[in-house]
Amino acid sequence: MDLKFQDGLIPAIIQDRHTGKVLMLGYMNAEAVNKTLESGYVTFYSRARQKLWTKGEKSGHHLQVREIRVDCDRDALLVQADLRGPGCCHMGYRSCFFRKMTPSGEEVFLRREFDPSKVYGEENPESQT
Amino acid sequence: MDLKFQDGLIPAIIQDRHTGKVLMLGYMNAEAVNKTLESGYVTFYSRARQKLWTKGEKSGHHLQVREIRVDCDRDALLVQADLRGPGCCHMGYRSCFFRKMTPSGEEVFLRREFDPSKVYGEENPESQT
Repeated sequence: MDLKFQDGLIPAIIQDRHTGKVLMLGYMNAEAVNKTLESGYVTFYSRARQKLWTKGEKSGHHLQVREIRVDCDRDALLVQADLRGPGCCHMGYRSCFFRKMTPSGEEVFLRREFDPSKVYGEENPESQT
Repeated sequence: MDLKFQDGLIPAIIQDRHTGKVLMLGYMNAEAVNKTLESGYVTFYSRARQKLWTKGEKSGHHLQVREIRVDCDRDALLVQADLRGPGCCHMGYRSCFFRKMTPSGEEVFLRREFDPSKVYGEENPESQT
């Protein structure tokens, strides 16, 4: 697959294949793409920690790959996945997109599915992206 | 809204609010975010052309904003939108994600909705992102 990486990375949108909800956006380098393909579980490259991280490696909330789509310019991926666990977000929500903008400010519109301190510990090292 | 831009940009996923289909991924700078909010139509910053572009400015296929969501780390946006036209992709498909990876290679799984040369002209200047 001929992908266009920018500074070595390509953004990957993760979508719940059953509900159609967008769960998160992460970044992959070529190694992460290969590991995702080989393992069948979504693996990103963490820009903050500068290393590969398989989503769920700490929480157990893995993202099982069902299909990978490529966009017209080959510079973005859309992964159809099954979320193995109550939430994708390290803050305890099913989706990382749990806030919406309103004229009066931001509003949380999802309910929390789990207590992140119990899943990730106080340090919460599995921050997103 | 306190957003985290990287090199001045934030990725914005555009999702059809009726079907849940992911239509495209683009990038916004602060000015594009403001213009999107003020106009109610999705406006990106084109990295290739280094200027703002309102989706549909050439094709007429605008993206009308219905809701903007922000992710946990405030470094990605998810825009719920109505697509005004037959397709979002400059190659004639409803979604830019019209190809999927298969064990034997890539496969186009969407049908073409319009002839891009008739909408964009031969030069097709409204390339994605």
